[in-house]
Amino acid sequence: MRRNEFFQLLQERVLFLDGAYGTEFFKRGVNGLIELLNIEDPEEVQKLHREYIEAGSDIILTNTFSANRLKLRAYNLEKDLERININAVKIAKSVSGGKFVFGDISSTGNFISPLGNLDFEEAYEVFKEQASLLIEAGVDGIILETMSDLKELKAAIIAVRDLSHEIPLIAHMTFEADGKTVSGTSIEIFATLMNDLDVDVVGINCSLEPDEMLPVFTKLSELSMKPLCVEPNAGKPILEKGRLSYKTAPKEFAVYMADFIELGANIVGGCCGTGPEHIKVMCKYIGNQKPRKRQVKREQYLSSRTILRPTDTFLVIGERINASGRKKLQTKIQQMDFSQVVELSQLQEQEGCDAIDLNFGIEKLLTHDHFRRAIVELDKRSSLPVSFDIQNLQFLESAMREYAGRGLINSAFAREDHLEERIRLLKKYGGMLIVLAMEKHVPETAQQRFKIAMKAAEILKDHDVDLERVYFDPLVLPAGAKNDYHTTLKAIELMNRAGLKTSIGLSNLSFGLANRESVNAAFLALCIEKGLSAAILNSAEATTMNVLRGALQLKGKEPAKTEQVIEDEL
Amino acid sequence: MRRNEFFQLLQERVLFLDGAYGTEFFKRGVNGLIELLNIEDPEEVQKLHREYIEAGSDIILTNTFSANRLKLRAYNLEKDLERININAVKIAKSVSGGKFVFGDISSTGNFISPLGNLDFEEAYEVFKEQASLLIEAGVDGIILETMSDLKELKAAIIAVRDLSHEIPLIAHMTFEADGKTVSGTSIEIFATLMNDLDVDVVGINCSLEPDEMLPVFTKLSELSMKPLCVEPNAGKPILEKGRLSYKTAPKEFAVYMADFIELGANIVGGCCGTGPEHIKVMCKYIGNQKPRKRQVKREQYLSSRTILRPTDTFLVIGERINASGRKKLQTKIQQMDFSQVVELSQLQEQEGCDAIDLNFGIEKLLTHDHFRRAIVELDKRSSLPVSFDIQNLQFLESAMREYAGRGLINSAFAREDHLEERIRLLKKYGGMLIVLAMEKHVPETAQQRFKIAMKAAEILKDHDVDLERVYFDPLVLPAGAKNDYHTTLKAIELMNRAGLKTSIGLSNLSFGLANRESVNAAFLALCIEKGLSAAILNSAEATTMNVLRGALQLKGKEPAKTEQVIEDEL
Ligand SMILES: [Zn+2]
Ligand SMILES: [Zn+2]
Ligand SMILES: [Zn+2]
Repeated sequence: MRRNEFFQLLQERVLFLDGAYGTEFFKRGVNGLIELLNIEDPEEVQKLHREYIEAGSDIILTNTFSANRLKLRAYNLEKDLERININAVKIAKSVSGGKFVFGDISSTGNFISPLGNLDFEEAYEVFKEQASLLIEAGVDGIILETMSDLKELKAAIIAVRDLSHEIPLIAHMTFEADGKTVSGTSIEIFATLMNDLDVDVVGINCSLEPDEMLPVFTKLSELSMKPLCVEPNAGKPILEKGRLSYKTAPKEFAVYMADFIELGANIVGGCCGTGPEHIKVMCKYIGNQKPRKRQVKREQYLSSRTILRPTDTFLVIGERINASGRKKLQTKIQQMDFSQVVELSQLQEQEGCDAIDLNFGIEKLLTHDHFRRAIVELDKRSSLPVSFDIQNLQFLESAMREYAGRGLINSAFAREDHLEERIRLLKKYGGMLIVLAMEKHVPETAQQRFKIAMKAAEILKDHDVDLERVYFDPLVLPAGAKNDYHTTLKAIELMNRAGLKTSIGLSNLSFGLANRESVNAAFLALCIEKGLSAAILNSAEATTMNVLRGALQLKGKEPAKTEQVIEDEL
Repeated sequence: MRRNEFFQLLQERVLFLDGAYGTEFFKRGVNGLIELLNIEDPEEVQKLHREYIEAGSDIILTNTFSANRLKLRAYNLEKDLERININAVKIAKSVSGGKFVFGDISSTGNFISPLGNLDFEEAYEVFKEQASLLIEAGVDGIILETMSDLKELKAAIIAVRDLSHEIPLIAHMTFEADGKTVSGTSIEIFATLMNDLDVDVVGINCSLEPDEMLPVFTKLSELSMKPLCVEPNAGKPILEKGRLSYKTAPKEFAVYMADFIELGANIVGGCCGTGPEHIKVMCKYIGNQKPRKRQVKREQYLSSRTILRPTDTFLVIGERINASGRKKLQTKIQQMDFSQVVELSQLQEQEGCDAIDLNFGIEKLLTHDHFRRAIVELDKRSSLPVSFDIQNLQFLESAMREYAGRGLINSAFAREDHLEERIRLLKKYGGMLIVLAMEKHVPETAQQRFKIAMKAAEILKDHDVDLERVYFDPLVLPAGAKNDYHTTLKAIELMNRAGLKTSIGLSNLSFGLANRESVNAAFLALCIEKGLSAAILNSAEATTMNVLRGALQLKGKEPAKTEQVIEDEL
């Protein structure tokens, strides 16, 4: 199946997925690794597939949930990796009768660093290996299920897409009732990153019963710009006669699933505890429906693994992790000691930043491992989203690849070559972008800068990059006789009027001046009045941070709380 | 002599005053109060007058230096007050032969509160009494000499002018070599206040010999917009055979006096130690000269008795002495306890204010004595210039009358009646003025406020008030749905473009809002960018004070000191 056909179908009607395999096989008396059935008892698998098809499933999943090298290794079954996966596809296809067969992939069972010891690239290879077998065996699509580590999901998505740009891809994570994965990633963060990544459908499955999953799915439906899939469990597992069983009856399950459709689900199915009867009743109860139109929030967010920061009001990017001219910090970074980097990140969070700019300066003395390790350390010990202030393209990619969140590229020149390199990274890893309003040299006038930004905007649009994801930097130069700060203000005004978001490197303004903090703060107020959307600044400057707040409040970008007013004769 | 004739004459040529009477009579063997000669030995007086006339004096002074009621009381001569003064005029006129006779008035010998115990109004009455006698006896003008208390000089000036708007009036103070009076008033403060007051000539006399007086006079000549008079001593007094004598020879004295003429002196004469020979040699040496044209600094200053604050960069007026809604402060003020008022003034000076706004709020519970006493207390124990935020016109006049400096009236409505009342006070007591850009109600648009300000400017010009002395308040209202702060910004821009100075009450903006300090600070930056010249603000807001400095520096209103720049790879 081609992706656009799949997409077309998703617009036409709600599709039905199948139910569980694991819990259903256990119920039917299978013990041990169910994927072993693919080579030891293919008919048992075939039978369940057929029951799901007969129940009304439009899509069945291959019996390959745990059939990746690391999982199989735990069962000493590495040698059967190929057969298990290839047979699974064959079995499913043998009974699909024109319905779709999606290759099922789940976690390696190991956490990627920093949550565990698995290397991102190793996880990537494991997923690539399994996906490659499934695709070559002829699946119609791939579904990534029951993932609880955003970074692992990302590794899987990138692996699938490195194999094929044409295979339909569904990406799921599993959330707790509080709307977070066990590793602390919220449904909003998941939705936000998935909007960027090259997946066709996003969804949630497992862990929750339908009524618990509904509020989590509601948030997903509010933020996701992708078609949605959902597979709840059939209730909570109950230990009964030494076996786990699930108690949500098929009719009850079906009624719940109709709620998900009202919220905009495009594909509905069941996870643990659901069997063919659940799917059958659901399909009958729901029947042929057109998916609901959803109102999706267009707000842009940056995120780390655990922190989501909206950017619509104003984005404050802390500039303090900047090793330029700081020998001690440079040496530490060279020695892979990121303690100070982490400290500065934590400090900037306390100071009120939304994101931290990562500028190691001395790039020619570093390797891509420095950037990967830095990202892992920050993921582990700090929480703010990262702005990648990295010049070397390979290093930039290493950092973004390792990053468990939606970061910001800082920055691209407004030249086609420079932009295209970074657009490729945005599409592969997600995130936002700052584009400098210059090609090679700083244009003298605001009008020239504006013109260059508009040209860059056209290039971005030609490459299908939503301009909501992009900031344009009108360029701030050290204030003085040579550089009139009004040029920057005018450029902000022009860009803002044209609907472009703007971001500045505030501290450049006062480079070489006395009273830097005061000058920066005053200028920031002027910029915000002109419509500035973001700034990279020194959050240790209390005056700047206070004025920022005041300027935004004045501009009506933050609610002005009314305090008790003391009336008196005036 | 009419004032305009005198003024005309001053433009045409340098006039010669006479020399000393006191030291010259002592030299001639007179003991005791020399004014007693007017009734006991008129011929002695006549003789010295004649010698000065013969030496070349264009103006001779009556022998009435100490002939005021308080000085005479010390000699038990109150009963002779009238005769001494009237005879003095008669004697001088009997020998003047067409030359001018100016009635000489000096200090009461008592300091006015807070320097001493003399009440301002009593001093005023003493001067009025003596001046009245001199004027009625037919002097051509009045000279106020050897004053060292600015407030006493002011009392004398007001007294003379309350008697006659037509009598030519010369006002002198006596300075030490450091350019300050013994009570700490600088030559600049003196010059600044005299520019406003209704005197024809300002000058300095006594205490210094010519070469010491020259730098002091230089400052006067740079700041004074009035014709200038100068009378140095003939050197330092030396105790010789039990008598003080002065050693600067007539020729040496004459050569020095030529320097004063180069600096723009319009009238030159001699004080202690000078006699007819000094005047004779001087007149001959200098001859008939046209007064020099001077370049006078047009900058406006506010001052207290001892502190001068320029207003051209930006004027910061502290709002913290505001008793509105503060019961405890109100009670203290009602009880004439100004300790907190003084503390707040001192605090605001530390916080960086140029002036303090005095707003007692509860005017209907106060008397004019509250304002007089407050001004005296502030004069005594704090130093910042005062902004009179006083609604009741009588109270406003009491405060200004008592004030030893150049204050600010805050404020007048832009209505002819309201303006004229305050213009009268400005002309009588000196100072600057804030005019609200409203007649009775706050105009909605910036254009309306601008129009009203321009109309007020016309009224002020019609009344010969230099617009450099006036701020226009574009009106700041609490920011919110009803009031768009852009109206104020636009009004500042329009007024600034028309060359009007502007001042705002900054804190009004954030009335009822959260984060007042931040909002105020941000708005102040926007206002300064539009050209704002002054603000009444809360200097306890560190953010506001920091941003103020930064915004001015950015605007190029303060020199941006270049700090050492750390170069590094960027
Ligand atoms: Zn499940
Ligand atoms: Zn003297
Ligand atoms: Zn004298």
